[in-house]
Amino acid sequence: MKYVYAFSEGNKDMRDLLGGKGANLAEMTSLGLPVPSGFTVTTEACLNYYHNNGTLSDDIIREIFEKIEELEKITNKKLGGLDNPLLVSVRSGARISMPGMMDTILNLGINDKVVESIANLTNNRRFAYDCYRRFIQMYADVVMELPKSSFEYLFEDIKKSKNIKLDTDLTDLDLLEVIKKYKEEYIRLTNTPFPEDPKVQLIEAVKAVFRSWNNDRAITYRHLNNIPDEWGTAVNVQMMVYGNMGDTSGTGVAFTRNPATGENKLFGEYLINAQGEDVVAGIRTPQDISTLKNIIPEAFEKFVNISKILEKHYKDMQDMEFTIESGKLYILQTRNGKRTAKAALKIAVDLVNEGMISKEEAIMRVEASSLDQLLHPTFDSEDLKKKESEVISKGLAASPGAATGHLYFSATDVSNAFNNGVKDIVLAREETSPEDIEGMNIARGILTVRGGMTSHAAVVARGMGTCCVSGCSDLVVDAVNKTLTTKDGKVFKEGDYISLDGSTGNVYGKEIKTVPATISGEFKTFMEYADAIAKLKVKCNADNPSDAKVGYDFGAKGIGLCRTEHMFFDQERIFNFRKMIIADTKEQREKALDNILPYQREDFKGLFRVMNGLDVTIRYLDPPLHEFLPKTDEEIKSLAKDLGVSFIDLKNKVESLKEFNPMMGHRGCRLAITYPEVAVMQTKAVIGAAIEVEKEGVVVKPEIMIPLVGDVSELKYVKNIVKEVADKLILDNNSNLKYKVGTMIELPRAALLADEIAEEAEFFSFGTNDLTQMTFGFSRDDASKFLDNYYDKKILTEDPFKTIDQNGVGKLVEVATILGKKTRSDIELGICGEHGGDSKSIEFFNKLGLDYVSCSPYRVPIARLAAAQASIKNR
Amino acid sequence: MKYVYAFSEGNKDMRDLLGGKGANLAEMTSLGLPVPSGFTVTTEACLNYYHNNGTLSDDIIREIFEKIEELEKITNKKLGGLDNPLLVSVRSGARISMPGMMDTILNLGINDKVVESIANLTNNRRFAYDCYRRFIQMYADVVMELPKSSFEYLFEDIKKSKNIKLDTDLTDLDLLEVIKKYKEEYIRLTNTPFPEDPKVQLIEAVKAVFRSWNNDRAITYRHLNNIPDEWGTAVNVQMMVYGNMGDTSGTGVAFTRNPATGENKLFGEYLINAQGEDVVAGIRTPQDISTLKNIIPEAFEKFVNISKILEKHYKDMQDMEFTIESGKLYILQTRNGKRTAKAALKIAVDLVNEGMISKEEAIMRVEASSLDQLLHPTFDSEDLKKKESEVISKGLAASPGAATGHLYFSATDVSNAFNNGVKDIVLAREETSPEDIEGMNIARGILTVRGGMTSHAAVVARGMGTCCVSGCSDLVVDAVNKTLTTKDGKVFKEGDYISLDGSTGNVYGKEIKTVPATISGEFKTFMEYADAIAKLKVKCNADNPSDAKVGYDFGAKGIGLCRTEHMFFDQERIFNFRKMIIADTKEQREKALDNILPYQREDFKGLFRVMNGLDVTIRYLDPPLHEFLPKTDEEIKSLAKDLGVSFIDLKNKVESLKEFNPMMGHRGCRLAITYPEVAVMQTKAVIGAAIEVEKEGVVVKPEIMIPLVGDVSELKYVKNIVKEVADKLILDNNSNLKYKVGTMIELPRAALLADEIAEEAEFFSFGTNDLTQMTFGFSRDDASKFLDNYYDKKILTEDPFKTIDQNGVGKLVEVATILGKKTRSDIELGICGEHGGDSKSIEFFNKLGLDYVSCSPYRVPIARLAAAQASIKNR
Repeated sequence: MKYVYAFSEGNKDMRDLLGGKGANLAEMTSLGLPVPSGFTVTTEACLNYYHNNGTLSDDIIREIFEKIEELEKITNKKLGGLDNPLLVSVRSGARISMPGMMDTILNLGINDKVVESIANLTNNRRFAYDCYRRFIQMYADVVMELPKSSFEYLFEDIKKSKNIKLDTDLTDLDLLEVIKKYKEEYIRLTNTPFPEDPKVQLIEAVKAVFRSWNNDRAITYRHLNNIPDEWGTAVNVQMMVYGNMGDTSGTGVAFTRNPATGENKLFGEYLINAQGEDVVAGIRTPQDISTLKNIIPEAFEKFVNISKILEKHYKDMQDMEFTIESGKLYILQTRNGKRTAKAALKIAVDLVNEGMISKEEAIMRVEASSLDQLLHPTFDSEDLKKKESEVISKGLAASPGAATGHLYFSATDVSNAFNNGVKDIVLAREETSPEDIEGMNIARGILTVRGGMTSHAAVVARGMGTCCVSGCSDLVVDAVNKTLTTKDGKVFKEGDYISLDGSTGNVYGKEIKTVPATISGEFKTFMEYADAIAKLKVKCNADNPSDAKVGYDFGAKGIGLCRTEHMFFDQERIFNFRKMIIADTKEQREKALDNILPYQREDFKGLFRVMNGLDVTIRYLDPPLHEFLPKTDEEIKSLAKDLGVSFIDLKNKVESLKEFNPMMGHRGCRLAITYPEVAVMQTKAVIGAAIEVEKEGVVVKPEIMIPLVGDVSELKYVKNIVKEVADKLILDNNSNLKYKVGTMIELPRAALLADEIAEEAEFFSFGTNDLTQMTFGFSRDDASKFLDNYYDKKILTEDPFKTIDQNGVGKLVEVATILGKKTRSDIELGICGEHGGDSKSIEFFNKLGLDYVSCSPYRVPIARLAAAQASIKNR
Repeated sequence: MKYVYAFSEGNKDMRDLLGGKGANLAEMTSLGLPVPSGFTVTTEACLNYYHNNGTLSDDIIREIFEKIEELEKITNKKLGGLDNPLLVSVRSGARISMPGMMDTILNLGINDKVVESIANLTNNRRFAYDCYRRFIQMYADVVMELPKSSFEYLFEDIKKSKNIKLDTDLTDLDLLEVIKKYKEEYIRLTNTPFPEDPKVQLIEAVKAVFRSWNNDRAITYRHLNNIPDEWGTAVNVQMMVYGNMGDTSGTGVAFTRNPATGENKLFGEYLINAQGEDVVAGIRTPQDISTLKNIIPEAFEKFVNISKILEKHYKDMQDMEFTIESGKLYILQTRNGKRTAKAALKIAVDLVNEGMISKEEAIMRVEASSLDQLLHPTFDSEDLKKKESEVISKGLAASPGAATGHLYFSATDVSNAFNNGVKDIVLAREETSPEDIEGMNIARGILTVRGGMTSHAAVVARGMGTCCVSGCSDLVVDAVNKTLTTKDGKVFKEGDYISLDGSTGNVYGKEIKTVPATISGEFKTFMEYADAIAKLKVKCNADNPSDAKVGYDFGAKGIGLCRTEHMFFDQERIFNFRKMIIADTKEQREKALDNILPYQREDFKGLFRVMNGLDVTIRYLDPPLHEFLPKTDEEIKSLAKDLGVSFIDLKNKVESLKEFNPMMGHRGCRLAITYPEVAVMQTKAVIGAAIEVEKEGVVVKPEIMIPLVGDVSELKYVKNIVKEVADKLILDNNSNLKYKVGTMIELPRAALLADEIAEEAEFFSFGTNDLTQMTFGFSRDDASKFLDNYYDKKILTEDPFKTIDQNGVGKLVEVATILGKKTRSDIELGICGEHGGDSKSIEFFNKLGLDYVSCSPYRVPIARLAAAQASIKNR
C-alpha cells in the first residue's frame, strides 16, 4: 500500500484516493500548468490513521519524508534549512469538496531561525514575520485546538497599543512583538514551548487535518450533503507561494463562467498583497477579477489563457484559486465550480450548443435536487412594484431566489424559532461562519454585512439553494441586542419582516408577496432534453385544481394521487362529513354523504379540466375517521351543539373511534367495506364529474384507486361497488366514458400477493410511505425519536422515508412488479408518496421498469430530470 | 349431473356428495343391515338450489320423483296411495354432522285421506292421528316457518280442556280435534289451506331443508367449527318406520363405547312407544340401553350384533340411531361418534391395543384442539373435601371437567356478562336449545334440569369440551326471575357462585378451587405415540418458574419465549424500572437498573432450574416504555411523590413518551440501542444466573433473543454489547458456559433480509403475532372493530391472528427460512406467539421444516399432537 503520491504521480481520475483537490493538482501538473510542487497523503492514510486510534503508522511517516526529500530536490529548497528554506501549505482535500469545513495550515516549516533566513532572502522582514505569526496562530488553532480568541485578542491589543487600524500598518518590529506574545501565550495554554522542528510541525499538521474530518461542522455538512463518513480526507502538502509579498503579489479565486447566472465570462475576485485565507474569510472586500488586467497584466493574461485550457480539459466550468508571487502566476487549485441551478442549466445548455458535451452529458451535469432552487416562488411583480420604495439596502446578489421572512440574528435563534413553528425566516449576520450551518439550512434567506461573492455565506447559500444577499456594508447588525439598523437609522428587531432578492441584491424592509416559479429559457430547453431521454413518466400529487395547475405547468403528465379526504375539510363539508361519521344508521350516513356529493363532484371537475387528456388518479377515503373529529372537550361540546346531539353521545363516539395504532387501524379500503355508501358517493362524484366535463369537450381519464388493500377480496368487494354505480351512471347518461380501477400497494401482504391482486387491479400505485412504515415497523410519527440515534450509531445511513430502502422495501416493490406483470402484462405501475420525488429512489424505480412516479407539484421538474438521469445510468 | 342417489347406489366414501348421513345409510344398505329404504338428494343439488336463487331445477324434481317411484316399487307402498300409503322422513345430512342445527320432517305423505287408510291398516286410529298432527306441526314450523308457539299453545289448550297431563293420554278423538285446530291455525297464519298433495309436501320439504343450511344457528355452528359455508347439505328421503306403534315399538340412540369415558361397553338410551325426536329433545327421560334386553330381547340382541359389525367395519366407535317397529329393528343412522377428549384418547389407545388401527391412525383420530378439555383445571381435592357438604344437586355427568363460576340464566346474559369482564360463568337452563349456542360457547360450565346424556346440552357441551351436568331434575330454574332453587328451598341468584363436576354430576353451591390437569394413563401413552412421530419440537412460553413448571410437566422441550418485561411489574422492580425510565443521565439509569439486576437474576435461576438441560430462550426488553408508566394525573401525582420528582416533570416525561402508533414505535431492540445499559443489565442477569445455577449441577442452555430487528446492524450492535458483557462474566468466573444469541423475525424487512441477519443470529424465532400485524397492517388491538365485518362479508374466512395466513405472512416465514438456512445451514428456527399453539398453523410450520414451535404451557400437549399429525400428513 502506497500512502503518499507526488503530484506528478497522480491524475484527475484518482479522486477517491487523492481527494478532489489532490487529483486536480496532479492533473494540472501533468498538463504543464504552473502548480507549486507538492504531494498528497491519501484518504487511505486517513482511514489508516483512524483505524490505529489516531496515530500515523511508521510507513506513512516514512513515505511523507521521502516525498519531502523529493520536493526539496525539485524546489532546491530545504525544510528547516537556512540557505533556502522550504515552507509548505498543508490542506485537506476530500473526494467531494467541503468548502471551509476542514482545516488548513500555511507557512509550515518556519521557526525562529528560518524566519530570519526568509527575511534576508526576500529582503522583506515584515513579510517574514507576518508569515511566522500567521503560522503560530494557525498551528495553535488547528493542531493544538487552542481558543482563537486568545490570539486574536493579543493581536488587537498590540494594534490598539500602536494606535493602528489595518493589519498591514503593523511594522516588522510590531510583528516581532506579536510573535513573542503568541509564543508566551502558547506556553501558557499548553505548558510546552512552540515546536521549532519543522518535521514535528508537519506530522502534527497532517494528523490535525485528518482529525478535522470529524469536527462537528464537517459531520453536519456531510450529513446535509449525504457524504459517507467512511470516505476520509486526503492531505495536500505543497510548496508555499506568497500573495502577500507586496504590490506585484496577490491572490484570488475565479470561475470560468458566472456561477450565479452561467454567463460565459470569467468571474472572480482577488486581493493584492494577501494570502488566500483573506479572500475566503471575507474580511477585506476583494476586487473584481477584470480589474487585475490593469494591475498585473501579464499574470492576468496568463490566467485567462489557463482558465480556457482548464475548461476545455475538464469540459466544465472551473473554479480556480491562484496566487501571484512577485508577478509570477501559480495555480493552486481547480475544480468543477459550484453554481446555482440557474447557472448550471445555462452552462449545460451552452456547452451543448458549443459542441463541448452531449445532451446526455448535460443532463448528468445538473444535480436533480438542485432544481429546487428554481422552483421556489419569486416576488410577485405587482406587490414588488408597490414596495420598491421599501429598499433598505443593496448588497451582492450572492445566491438567487426571493425570500420573505422574520428576522433572526443567530443560528440558534433560527433553530429555536423554527422549532416553535416559525417557517419563514431570514438570518442576518455580520458574516457567517461554518458554525452557522444549521441555521443557514433552515432559513429562507441569508443576509450578511461583510464578504463578497465567494464569502462563506455566498458559497454555502448557493450550495443549499438558499437565497442570499451578502456584503450589505451600509447595514449594522447587532447580534447581541438583536437589531438591524439601516443607514437612515431605521431599526429592525427580531421577528420583523424583511425580504431579500437574491437575484438583484435588494433588501426590503417589508413582507413582499411571492409567486410560483415558471419554466422558460434554458430551463425549458434543458427539460426538453430530459423528457426526450427519460423513460419514467412524472405525474403530480394534487388535491385541488390550483395544485394541479402548478403540477401541469411544471410538466406533470397527469395526477398520480388525489387525496380525496383533503376535500372534506372545508367548513360545510366537514360538518356533513362529521354527521356521516356519527350517524347510527346507513340512511343517516347516506343523507349526510348526499350533502357532500355536489362539492366533491365540483372538485373533480376542476381537476379533470386542468388535466385535459391526462390520467387523474383518485384515491378513495383513506384516513381513520377520528382524524375528522375534534379532540378536546371544548371542541366536542361546540360540535355537539352544531350537530344537535348530546355532548356525552358525541364524546362516546369520539372515544369509540380512538385507536391504539391508527396507522394499522380502521382506514383505507376498510372504511369502504364497513361503509360501502362512502364508496358509492365517491364513485358518483368521480364519474358524475367526468361525464359532465366530457360534455365540455375535455378528455377525461379517471383512475379510481382503492387504498390499503391487503387481499384481493377487499379490492373485489369495493370494485364491485364502484363498477355497479359507475356503469349505471355511464349507461344512464349515454356516455362512452372509460375509467380504470386499481389499487395502492402499500402493505407488505399486498406486495407478496400482487399476482392475485392484479386479477382485479388495472393499475398499481406503490404507496411507499406506508410500505416503508409496515416493512420496517417504523411509525413515521414516532420514529424520529430514535432514528437520530440510529444515524449517530451508523445503524442506518439514510432516512428510509426520504430515499427508498432498496434492500427491504425495494425488494417488495420488485416482487410486486414481477407478480403484477405476470398476471396482467399491461398493468400500469407507479409510485405515489415522497419517494416519487427523490432522485436516488427514482433511479431505483426506473431500474425496476415502472411506468411513472408521482410527486408534489414543486418536485415535478426534479423528478423529470432524475428520471432522465436514471435512464442514462441504466443504459 | 346426477342429483339423486338411491341408498343402494352410494357408499361411505361419497360423503362430500351424499352427506355423512346419506353415505352411511348407503354403506349400511350394502352391508345388508336393516335400513329403511330411501334415497339422497345430493349437496350438489343444494348448491344448485342456492345458485338458482332458491328454486329446485326441473331435473332435480324429475329425479326425485323417479326415485320415489323406485321406492314405491321396493316398499310396495305408494306416496299418497290409499291402499298401502308410503310415508317418508326428510332429513338433512351435511358432510360433517351438525347435530340439531338443521331441520327434519317426519311422516311426510300423510293427508286427510291417507291418515284414514293408515288408521285402518294399522288398526291404530290414535297412532295415525298422532302422526298427522306431528306432521302438520313440523311442516308449519320447518317449511312455512310459522311460530312454533302457536301450535304448542293449541295443543296445551286441548290437553288442559280435557284435563290431561301426558300427550299419550290424548285419545284418537282428541287428536282429531288437534288436527282440526292446527289446520285452522295454518289457514289463519298463511291464508292458504294445508297442502294435501304429498308431492307438493315433498318438494317443499326438500327446499326447506336446503334453506335450513343457512339458518342462524347453523351458520353460528359452522363458524365455531370452521365448516365452510360453501359445502351445502344433502337431504335424505327415507321410508318411515315407527317407534310409536305401541309397547313393542321404540326408538333409541347408542354408542358402541362410552363417549364420555371411552369404556368399551355399549352405551345408550331408548324410549318405548316414541319417535326419535322425543329422545333427542330430552322431553321424556329415556332408559339405559342395557334394560332393553329385558323388554324386547330379540331386537336388543340383533342391535348388539349390528353395533359390533359397524364398529369393525368403520374401525371406530359408532353413534347409531335405531327404531323398533312392532318388534322389528331398523337402523336409521350410524356415524363415528362424538366423544370427549378423554374418551377419544382411551378409544384410540384401546383400538391400537385391539389391533384394529395403527398408532398413526390413532394419532389422526383425535382432534388436537380437543385435548384442551383435558388441560383445564380439575377441582383441588382438599378444597373439594371441605365443600363436599355443599352439594346441592346431582345430575348426569354429561361432559367431563370441573367448572366454577358465576351463575347466569340465559345465553344473552352470559354474553353480556362476559363482555363486561366476567370470565368464570356457569349457564343454568331448564334445557338448552340451538339458540343458546353462543352462550354455551362462552360458559365454563352448563347445568340443565331436563334432558339425558344425549340431550342437546350434553352433545354440544361435549363437542365444545365444556363441562356439563344435565338432568338435575330436583332443581328449579326460573329464567324470568333469574333464580335457581334447590329441593331444600335454597335460592341462588344471578352472579352467585356455583361449581359443577362434569365427571361425577355433582353440583356445588360454592366456589371450589381448581388445580391444573396432569398427563397420565391413556393420555400419557397417546402422547408417547405422538412424540415418536412428530418432527417439530414443542417448547413453551413462560415468564416465571411456575408457568415453566406447567409447561415442563405438559412435555415442553424448553422455553421458547421468556418475556423479561413481565418480570418488571413486581412492586419493588417497577419502582426502580420507572426510575430508570425517567432518568436524565446514563448514570442514573444504570443505578436504577443495578437495583433490578438481583431480582431478574433470581427469576432466571428459577427458570434454568426447571428447564434443566433444555433451551431457555430469553427475549430482551420489548414493549414501549410508556407501558410502564401511569396514565392518569392521580397516578402520576402519586408516583411523582414516590420518586421524589415534581408532578409537572413526570407528567411531561409521560407525555413525551406517548406515541401515535406504539406498535411501530420505540420498542424492541430500539430500546437497547438508545439505552445500551438495559441490555447490559439483562445480560448480567441471564449469564450471572446461568453461571450460579451451573454450580448447582444444573445444565443451562441460555438463548438470548433480541426482539424487533429489522436490519442486521441493529442485531450486531446489541449483540456486541451482549457478547462483551457475557464473555467477561464467563471469563471472570472461570466458567465454560455456552450461550446463543439470536433474534426474532417479526418485521417484514427482517424476513426479506434474513440472509444478512443470519450472519449474526444463531437462531430465528418467528414472532408471527407482530409479523401478522405488519404484513396485513392490522393493529391487533384495533382490528376486531372491522374484522367481524370482514368475516360477515367473506373477505376473510379465518382470523389471521389465530391461524397463520399461509399465503402472505406464511410466505415471509418461508422466505426467511430459506434465506436463513442459506447463510447458516444449522440455524435453529422456531415460532413463538399464538400460532405456535394452533394445529393448522403447526401443520404449515412443519411443512416449512422449522425446528420447534413454542406456545403457552396449557397448549403444549395440543401442539405435540398437532406436530405428530402434521408429520403424518406431510409424509
